[in-house]
Amino acid sequence: MEQLSKAVSQTVRDVHSSNPLVGSWTNFVTINLVANAQLAVGGRAAMCFLPDEAKPLANVSKSIYINVGTLQPIALQSLPEAAKAAEELQKPWVLDPVAAGLGDSRTSILKELKQYKPDIIRGNASEIMTLANLWGLQTQSKGNVEGVDATDSVESALTSAKALALWTGGAVAISGETDIVLDNKRACRVYGGSEMLKKITGAGCSLGGVMAVYSAVSDAFTAALAGSLAYKWASQKAVKENMGSFSFQTAFIDNLSLLDAETIEKYAQKAGELI
Amino acid sequence: MEQLSKAVSQTVRDVHSSNPLVGSWTNFVTINLVANAQLAVGGRAAMCFLPDEAKPLANVSKSIYINVGTLQPIALQSLPEAAKAAEELQKPWVLDPVAAGLGDSRTSILKELKQYKPDIIRGNASEIMTLANLWGLQTQSKGNVEGVDATDSVESALTSAKALALWTGGAVAISGETDIVLDNKRACRVYGGSEMLKKITGAGCSLGGVMAVYSAVSDAFTAALAGSLAYKWASQKAVKENMGSFSFQTAFIDNLSLLDAETIEKYAQKAGELI
Amino acid sequence: MEQLSKAVSQTVRDVHSSNPLVGSWTNFVTINLVANAQLAVGGRAAMCFLPDEAKPLANVSKSIYINVGTLQPIALQSLPEAAKAAEELQKPWVLDPVAAGLGDSRTSILKELKQYKPDIIRGNASEIMTLANLWGLQTQSKGNVEGVDATDSVESALTSAKALALWTGGAVAISGETDIVLDNKRACRVYGGSEMLKKITGAGCSLGGVMAVYSAVSDAFTAALAGSLAYKWASQKAVKENMGSFSFQTAFIDNLSLLDAETIEKYAQKAGELI
Repeated sequence: MEQLSKAVSQTVRDVHSSNPLVGSWTNFVTINLVANAQLAVGGRAAMCFLPDEAKPLANVSKSIYINVGTLQPIALQSLPEAAKAAEELQKPWVLDPVAAGLGDSRTSILKELKQYKPDIIRGNASEIMTLANLWGLQTQSKGNVEGVDATDSVESALTSAKALALWTGGAVAISGETDIVLDNKRACRVYGGSEMLKKITGAGCSLGGVMAVYSAVSDAFTAALAGSLAYKWASQKAVKENMGSFSFQTAFIDNLSLLDAETIEKYAQKAGELI
Repeated sequence: MEQLSKAVSQTVRDVHSSNPLVGSWTNFVTINLVANAQLAVGGRAAMCFLPDEAKPLANVSKSIYINVGTLQPIALQSLPEAAKAAEELQKPWVLDPVAAGLGDSRTSILKELKQYKPDIIRGNASEIMTLANLWGLQTQSKGNVEGVDATDSVESALTSAKALALWTGGAVAISGETDIVLDNKRACRVYGGSEMLKKITGAGCSLGGVMAVYSAVSDAFTAALAGSLAYKWASQKAVKENMGSFSFQTAFIDNLSLLDAETIEKYAQKAGELI
Repeated sequence: MEQLSKAVSQTVRDVHSSNPLVGSWTNFVTINLVANAQLAVGGRAAMCFLPDEAKPLANVSKSIYINVGTLQPIALQSLPEAAKAAEELQKPWVLDPVAAGLGDSRTSILKELKQYKPDIIRGNASEIMTLANLWGLQTQSKGNVEGVDATDSVESALTSAKALALWTGGAVAISGETDIVLDNKRACRVYGGSEMLKKITGAGCSLGGVMAVYSAVSDAFTAALAGSLAYKWASQKAVKENMGSFSFQTAFIDNLSLLDAETIEKYAQKAGELI
C-alpha cells in the first residue's frame, strides 16, 4: 500500500502541475458538478454532445469521460464515436454506466461501447453487475439498478468487476460505502467517506470525471484509486453535525480543490487496503 | 387545519422512512436543483429524456414529475409517453407547465398531456391561467406568461385552478407570494416564505419535483400542501439580512434537508389557512 | 473614464429598477449559473432550445444571449433563428463563441451568425481570434482554442477584436487576466478580478449572460463594460486565503447580487482604463 500511496500522491502532483484537459460526454443532471469537480482537482473541462466533435475533442484532450445518463437521441451516434476516437487517438477513457439496464437506447449504446475497452469503468455495484451481464461476461448475477441507485452490495459485484477488468485490461471501480478498485493484477478496498454523499446528486458522476482527470497523467489503476481516495477524504472531512446537504456539497468541493499530494499520500495508507 | 397538519407531518415522516424514487422529465436550467431538492427532502431522483425510457422509469418510480421547460425536439414524443406510462402504471404524476403558451411545441405537448390528468398541477398564476385556457376549461382570463415569470396574481388564477382540478380530479398548486393549494373539495392558502426565492432560478421547478416526492406516499392534495409548506418554511428560515443569492440558496436547500415531521406540523398550523 | 463610470452606474441602477427579461440560448454545463448570475444582477432569465421559440422568446425579452457551447443537433436551426429574431425585433443580442473552431457544426453555426451582427461579442482571446478568422475578417492570427480555454493572451486578440467591432458596429469584450472592452470609437482595459474564476466553470458564459442583461438598458459598449467591471469587482471581493472553489463561487454570486450602482461607479474609476 505504501508504494500505491506514493503513486497516488504523484498523480495528484502531476495533475496540479499540468492541468490536463479532459473531454466529457455526460448527463445533464450533474454536468456542472462534473466540470467543477474536474477543475477543483486541477484538471480542465470541456463537454460535448455531437458526433462531429468526437475526434476534435479527443484530439485536444488528454483523456475522455463517457457517462450514459440522461441520453438524448444523438447519443446513439455520439457516444460510440467518442469512445472510438479515444481508442484511435490512444487517449485513456472512463466509462460510467449510469442506470445500466434502463431503456433500450442505453442498452444499445453500452453494448456498442464494449469493443472500445474503457481504461476505467466506474459504477455502483448494480451498474457494474448489469454491465458485465450486458457484455456477456458473466451471467449469474444480473444486478438490479433502481433508477440510478444500487440495490446490490459492493462485495457482491466483485466477480463482475473482475470479469470486466479481464475483458478491458483496465481498472474497475465499484463505488459504495466502501469502494473497491481493481485491475487484473491488484485489488484494493477504500474506506472512509460520508453518507452525506447520498444526499446530493452527482457524487458518482463527478468521481468518474475526476478519475478521467487522474488517468491523464497515470495508469488506470492508480488513477481510479486516486479518485476514490480523493472522494473518501474530501467527503469525510466535509461532514459536520446537523449539516445541511448544500453546505456539505460546498465543503466537499472545497476540499477537493484544497487536496494536496502529501495529504492524499498519508490518507491512502490509512484508508486503503490491498485485498 | 389541524387534521391537514397531521397528514402533512405523516407525509414527511413516510418519505424519510421510505426514500421513494421519483422519475423526472425536466428542464436543463434547474435539473440539478430539482434532483438535489428531491434528495434533500428524503426522496431519490432519476431523470430521463427518451421515449423508450418512459415505461421502465415509471416502473421503478413511485411517482413521476413532468416539467415542460427548455424542450428538445424529442420531448414531443417523450413527455406524452411519460405521462401515459404514469397513468397506465397508476403512478401519481405532477405537471409543471413552465412558460405555458411560449412556442408551438410547448403548446402542442401541453394539449396532449390533458388526457392523462395529472394528479398535481403546479405553476405560477400565469401558467395556471394559460393552461386552463389551452385545455379549453375556461376562456375568460388567458394568463400572461412573460418568459417563465408570472404577471398575474395568485388570487386571479383561482377560477382557473378550480377548473383544472375539476378536470383532473387531482390537486392544483398556485405558487406566489402566498400559495394556494386546492382540489375539488378543499382549498388552502399558505403564507410565509421569502422574496429571495425570486433571486435564484428553480424555486418553482424544484417545488414541483418535491411535490412529486411527497405524492409517492400520500394523496395529491396533502402532497402539494406539504411541498408548499416545506418551501415556505425552508426559505423563510434561510433569510438573513444583506444576504447574497447563493448563500440563500445554500441555506434554503440545507433547511429542506433538515426539515422534520414535527417542525412542518407546527408550521402548517401557523402558515396554512383553509379557505 | 469618469463619464463611463457614470454610464455604467446608471446601467446597474436601471437594471435594478426594471428587472429586464433576457432570453438565452446557452450550453448545458453552465446554464444554471448563467440564469443565477442574470437574476443576481437584477435581470430575469428564460432559456430555450427550439426554433419555434425563437420569435416568441425574442418578443417577450429585452435582449438575447446566444452561446454556442455543448450544441445539440437542433442548434443548427435554432441559433440562427434566435439571432434572426433578435435582429428583426431589434433586440440587442450577445454572442459567446465558446470553443470556436471545435467541430463542423459549431463552425457552421458561427459562420451563419455573422450576418446578424451581434451587439456584443464576448469571448476569451483565442475565441475572439478564431471567430474573426472564421468570419474572414482577419487572417493573420488564427487563435488556438484548447477545449474551452484560451491559449492566447488578451492583448494578442486586440486586432481581431477591432476587426469584429468594425464588422458588427457593436462592442467586443475579451476576457482574461485583464479584460479589454472596445467598440469602433473606444477601448478600455479592466483590471482586478481573481484567478479563482478559473477554478469554477461558467465564469465566461455567465459574464456573457450578464452583459446581455445590461444591454437591455444601455448601449453595447457600456453594457459590456458594466459586465466586465461587475465580474472583476465581485470576484476580487470574494477571495479569501485558502479558499475552496465552491465557497468562492457562493461568495462571488453573492457579491453580484449585492452590487449597487454607487459601488460600481467608484470601482470603475479605479479598475478601468481608457486606451
